[in-house]
Order: sequence, then structure tokens, then C-alpha cells
Amino acid sequence: MEVDHLGIAVHDLASALARWERTLGSAASPPEEVPSQRVRVAFLEVGETHLEFLEPTDPASPIGRFLESRGEGLHHVAFLVPSVDRKLAEVSAEGGRLIDSLSRPGARGRRVGFVHPSAFGGVLVEFVERGQ
Amino acid sequence: MEVDHLGIAVHDLASALARWERTLGSAASPPEEVPSQRVRVAFLEVGETHLEFLEPTDPASPIGRFLESRGEGLHHVAFLVPSVDRKLAEVSAEGGRLIDSLSRPGARGRRVGFVHPSAFGGVLVEFVERGQ
Repeated sequence: MEVDHLGIAVHDLASALARWERTLGSAASPPEEVPSQRVRVAFLEVGETHLEFLEPTDPASPIGRFLESRGEGLHHVAFLVPSVDRKLAEVSAEGGRLIDSLSRPGARGRRVGFVHPSAFGGVLVEFVERGQ
Repeated sequence: MEVDHLGIAVHDLASALARWERTLGSAASPPEEVPSQRVRVAFLEVGETHLEFLEPTDPASPIGRFLESRGEGLHHVAFLVPSVDRKLAEVSAEGGRLIDSLSRPGARGRRVGFVHPSAFGGVLVEFVERGQ
């Protein structure tokens, strides 16, 4: 398995990107809106993986609520899998609580699915299907 | 630059490793004590990067206090750099607050250095020097 990306919740995409691009020496992808999550996101390539910066478009969205309760910071880790539906079913069969019982459209045209943090000792885990 | 590892704070190393090894299908490194951080850690390889699981050996250690205030979960992200001292100096020169002004010995015999989360919008960043 591979780490597809590490999600970071931010108040303001532009200022976060400016700061991280300078430190990592790479340029972020153009921001993209993900309506199902009520966020705008941009990806910054770092070696074989990516940082995903998430800015809420709605304060009542999951990222908006995260920012309100915990402030900016590390939000989730996403693993690349051949089939998100199969992986979610596997986690569920082992007794892990799911957020998404089936995959749904995420950023970059990929299928994604989230597992509840209780399943992985407090870590919010996302599975992402490899793009075409 | 590359993501060397993603640090995850846990109460109990053995039970966290059992859970994650099953999901990721890989075996963790033997646990190692890092006296300077008052933690026991183990690494799990995931593609080109690693998950580092940190269990406090002292409740007053940074990881012990993190667990008390926020519970288990994502703790820091570590980037591989040619020179930790040079990278820390660079961040400091740009006005970023440091935790370590100079590199010090970390896990796996590597030199490491931490930057204060305020420098990267709430994200605790570690720099790790490539091993021999």
C-alpha cells in the first residue's frame, strides 16, 4: 500500500500554499472545489506522496467544524488502494466503524471513502482509488 | 523533498501495531526507545514512506501531554532533508519559530529537528537527515 496524501485543514488556502511551497520547493496543483465535502483543496507533491490542503467553503462542513474545535493542522491520512469499496468492506468486517459505507467521488476525479477515527486509534483514514 | 514518516501518538504500541499491520499488510520494525523524547517508537513501511507510532514512556513527555489533551491520533509529519541544521536555520531566517535550534539524535540513529507548529499553520514539522 502507499500513502496517497496527508490532509491538512487550513483557514486560508492561498496563504497556507505560499508558506508550504516555499519550504518544500514545489508548486501546488490549481485549487479545486469538492462539493460533497464542502471544501476547496489543492495538492502539493512531496516525493512519492502529496499534502492535501483543505479550506472549508461552509463553516458547518466537517473541515469547518474541525477547524473550530481543534484549529489548523493534520486532519487525515489517505492510502491508495485498488478498490475503495472492497477495502471499506474489509475494515467493516473486522469491526471497524465506517464514515462512508460505499466509495463516492472525491478530489481529482478519484473514488474515495472515509473510515471513522475510532477504527484506527484516533486517526481519520481515507482510502483513494488509483486514477486512470 | 520526501515525506520520511508520519508520526502517530498511541497509548499502547503493541495494540496499535497489530491493528495497522493487519490493514496495511506490512510488518513494523522492532520497537526502539528514544530517551531524548521519552517515547518508544516503531516504524511501519508504507510504500516510499513510513508511519511512526509513538508511545510515551513518561506521561509528562511531549507525547504523553499530547495524548492527555487531544487523545490518540496524527501527531507530526517528518520530511527528509540533506542537512537538518541548514533546514532549521532556513526556517528560522524566514521567521518560523523552532523547537530545536540544532539537530539532535532521533530514532533509527538519525539526526532530527522539530519546528514549532506555529511556523506551519498548526502542523508539527520534523526534519530528518538521511541515514548512512
